[in-house]
Amino acid sequence: MNKLIAFFFFVATFTSVAEAQNKYPLDAALLRTDNDSTIIKKFFDHALTSGKAYEWLDTLSNKIGGRLSGSKEAAQAVDWAERLFRSLNVTVIKQECMVPHWVRGEKEKGSIIPFKTKNIISVPICALGGSISTPPDFKAAKVVEVKNFEELEKLGRKNIEGKIVFYSRPMDATQINTFSAYGGAVDQRWGGAMKAAPYGAVGVVVRSMTLSLDDYPHTGAMGYNDTIPKIPACAISTKGADLLSKLLKKDPETKFLFKTSCQKLPDEKSYNVIGEIKGTEHPEEIIVVGGHLDSWDLGDGAFDDGAGVVQSAEVLNLFNALGIKPKRTIRAVMYMNEENGGKGGEKYAELAKQNGEQHIFAIESDAGGTTPHGFSLKGDSLMIEKILSWQNLFKRYNLYSWFRGYGGADIDHLEKQCPVLSGLSVDSQRYFDYHHAATDTFDKVNRRELELGAASMAALIYLISEYGLK
Amino acid sequence: MNKLIAFFFFVATFTSVAEAQNKYPLDAALLRTDNDSTIIKKFFDHALTSGKAYEWLDTLSNKIGGRLSGSKEAAQAVDWAERLFRSLNVTVIKQECMVPHWVRGEKEKGSIIPFKTKNIISVPICALGGSISTPPDFKAAKVVEVKNFEELEKLGRKNIEGKIVFYSRPMDATQINTFSAYGGAVDQRWGGAMKAAPYGAVGVVVRSMTLSLDDYPHTGAMGYNDTIPKIPACAISTKGADLLSKLLKKDPETKFLFKTSCQKLPDEKSYNVIGEIKGTEHPEEIIVVGGHLDSWDLGDGAFDDGAGVVQSAEVLNLFNALGIKPKRTIRAVMYMNEENGGKGGEKYAELAKQNGEQHIFAIESDAGGTTPHGFSLKGDSLMIEKILSWQNLFKRYNLYSWFRGYGGADIDHLEKQCPVLSGLSVDSQRYFDYHHAATDTFDKVNRRELELGAASMAALIYLISEYGLK
Repeated sequence: MNKLIAFFFFVATFTSVAEAQNKYPLDAALLRTDNDSTIIKKFFDHALTSGKAYEWLDTLSNKIGGRLSGSKEAAQAVDWAERLFRSLNVTVIKQECMVPHWVRGEKEKGSIIPFKTKNIISVPICALGGSISTPPDFKAAKVVEVKNFEELEKLGRKNIEGKIVFYSRPMDATQINTFSAYGGAVDQRWGGAMKAAPYGAVGVVVRSMTLSLDDYPHTGAMGYNDTIPKIPACAISTKGADLLSKLLKKDPETKFLFKTSCQKLPDEKSYNVIGEIKGTEHPEEIIVVGGHLDSWDLGDGAFDDGAGVVQSAEVLNLFNALGIKPKRTIRAVMYMNEENGGKGGEKYAELAKQNGEQHIFAIESDAGGTTPHGFSLKGDSLMIEKILSWQNLFKRYNLYSWFRGYGGADIDHLEKQCPVLSGLSVDSQRYFDYHHAATDTFDKVNRRELELGAASMAALIYLISEYGLK
Repeated sequence: MNKLIAFFFFVATFTSVAEAQNKYPLDAALLRTDNDSTIIKKFFDHALTSGKAYEWLDTLSNKIGGRLSGSKEAAQAVDWAERLFRSLNVTVIKQECMVPHWVRGEKEKGSIIPFKTKNIISVPICALGGSISTPPDFKAAKVVEVKNFEELEKLGRKNIEGKIVFYSRPMDATQINTFSAYGGAVDQRWGGAMKAAPYGAVGVVVRSMTLSLDDYPHTGAMGYNDTIPKIPACAISTKGADLLSKLLKKDPETKFLFKTSCQKLPDEKSYNVIGEIKGTEHPEEIIVVGGHLDSWDLGDGAFDDGAGVVQSAEVLNLFNALGIKPKRTIRAVMYMNEENGGKGGEKYAELAKQNGEQHIFAIESDAGGTTPHGFSLKGDSLMIEKILSWQNLFKRYNLYSWFRGYGGADIDHLEKQCPVLSGLSVDSQRYFDYHHAATDTFDKVNRRELELGAASMAALIYLISEYGLK
């Protein structure tokens, strides 16, 4: 788009433009006399003109990078988070927690070996998080392809024993919300090894959890059960999965071989890192905004969930920059170990209970740093009604989607201690292209989209802080 | 995001999944008995599972690339478009039109020369589209920085003569819709040279029209007026613009130098390329869906407007693939020369009038291939009311934003001949990061976002084709 016509249209249609940046008085008393709509606009204006979240994300992603729990990068991220909160002049709290320490080891290798040609075809794979490594004597094995656990059950031990089970059900591309598509397929990744081992499978290979057809394997947590033998599990790229399916159709004797050298080391000490602004009128009522500081190791974790942690810190930064003293206490929580254990979320809830803290609202941003569309909400109906009554204040920012739904993996540990949990709902189309893969990198994040998410949460938290939820 | 909790939530909350793809009967008679909601879902399902727009865009962007009117690439794009429509088994129409032929020449050079240090600092610039080149004897000149034409007027000839005018007003980042921010700043690019020349300026340099702070200059059309001397005009990257402002503040004697070798060649013959499916019941009533085939030359034009042309072709493809015979005639129009002349749009309207054609609705996609949010509409109020009555059918696809607004630069030529014009409204946050710059490349486009836009237009056109607008 270009051109005179467009130009005249825009100039004629929209009021504009070119106001000075950073023009807001830092006088809290003055701000208090403004109306809510004006203050909400200030959150958005400041975030879009002077927000810091994008710079912070650049550092976290590009200077530290992927930061799986227990890694040296995760420890660096904890230090970075502490320094960041100190630079904002907010109270810093660190909560120690023990976290799993799983390491990937050498780059994994996967290959398809058609029986007829014996031409070995390399395919991109990676170990699933938490998997044991392939044993030294692991050999190429025949493959049983299944779409779900029901098919597995029907095939039974006689068809599965000694083979590798290949879970090939794709995410459902017709779901408009890609998280629904993920939810409908990820049982294969989490439960695949546990389900296949009892039938004598020697390993599992799972189609990557993405809607993109490409050459990147997507890792993510998988589970074992102590009563069931542990077998190694890997993810294969979607193109690799399509190829394997195709070759198996042509030649059912096709074998698959993969080699991983991952291992579980002893648990490590790590931390949730929290920045806090005490409330002026009801300091005992706590509002949490959070994301998770750990990430998978293949990319730099900018989307999952660097975006959420820098947005959370930005919420505090916006209150400070605008000189708004919240009536209730606001905590930005960078949780540790969301990806493969949830120990940080658990610890936060445990300490909150132990300390008799009163949480009134918790929101998590863990769906990537894309354009926000609204909020999912769960919990006390009357309180949610109160929140929903504010929707009109958000329409000019295109936050049209307020619905009953999920909170977040970290804050859900607070479910019994916090009457309302919320998730920042964002445009989900691109998310799973990058999720848990080498493609989850800083360059995929757009500064404005990221800042709009931070401002959206700040604005909602502002209203809750002003008016409470009772 | 990961994890068991999320997993159980998703599985519990959403119905799923894993239905076979391409499962739709190609029996038009059967489809006619379905209700609108079901048919609309089929458009979306087919686009998301089997759509072709992304592949087509790959070819257009990566095999042909940037395709400014009159260039050999634009001619290749015309051939590609014709082949594409033939492959869809639709009627192909080519409309000849003469278009401007401006060429950029050698890569441009720009430099800042602070008076005090004389250290020459290179900065990224590019000629604005349509500009004359710098003359051979063009020398470094002092710089007058202005934010708008009013400042220019106040400074007057005595402060401007012999100098380069630097238009530095940024796009307003606080606008949520970035097109509004563009509309509020682009007068500097289009009118800057015309406004500065009468005061004796020797050239103009304009801050790039983008909200991103980076090193890419953004081109775009600029205008001359035959009664006013022509002076050369270039765009400077936003980082370059910030640096120039800073150095001018420190040292007002700072000079700027730029060298361009662009030129206007004789007009070339080119074409609009149209694919048409004749209506079964009211073939005389024509519905247009379009985008523009030409693009600027710095990138490969995937966003602006490769996306719009492949989405338009996809609309025809979806009708065919689903076996839906439209009651009214549908034309996908790939317009030529939107960027620097509008000759294709003009020609289409002229021929429509000449042929006594009856257009009832035209929609243009020219805002990038990002997630669709809804439709802007202008024209006959009663007809727009009818369209608005269908909004609920689109809510599940997150098309929440239906508003009175613009049509599109190409279809606006039809304004007097077509009662309702519409624009596909999409997420605008990323658009101007790439717009008219080297960064407008295929890798920035997401397949799902692109297909959702195509399906949205197909669904709306389906309803108009079924029910008309009277």
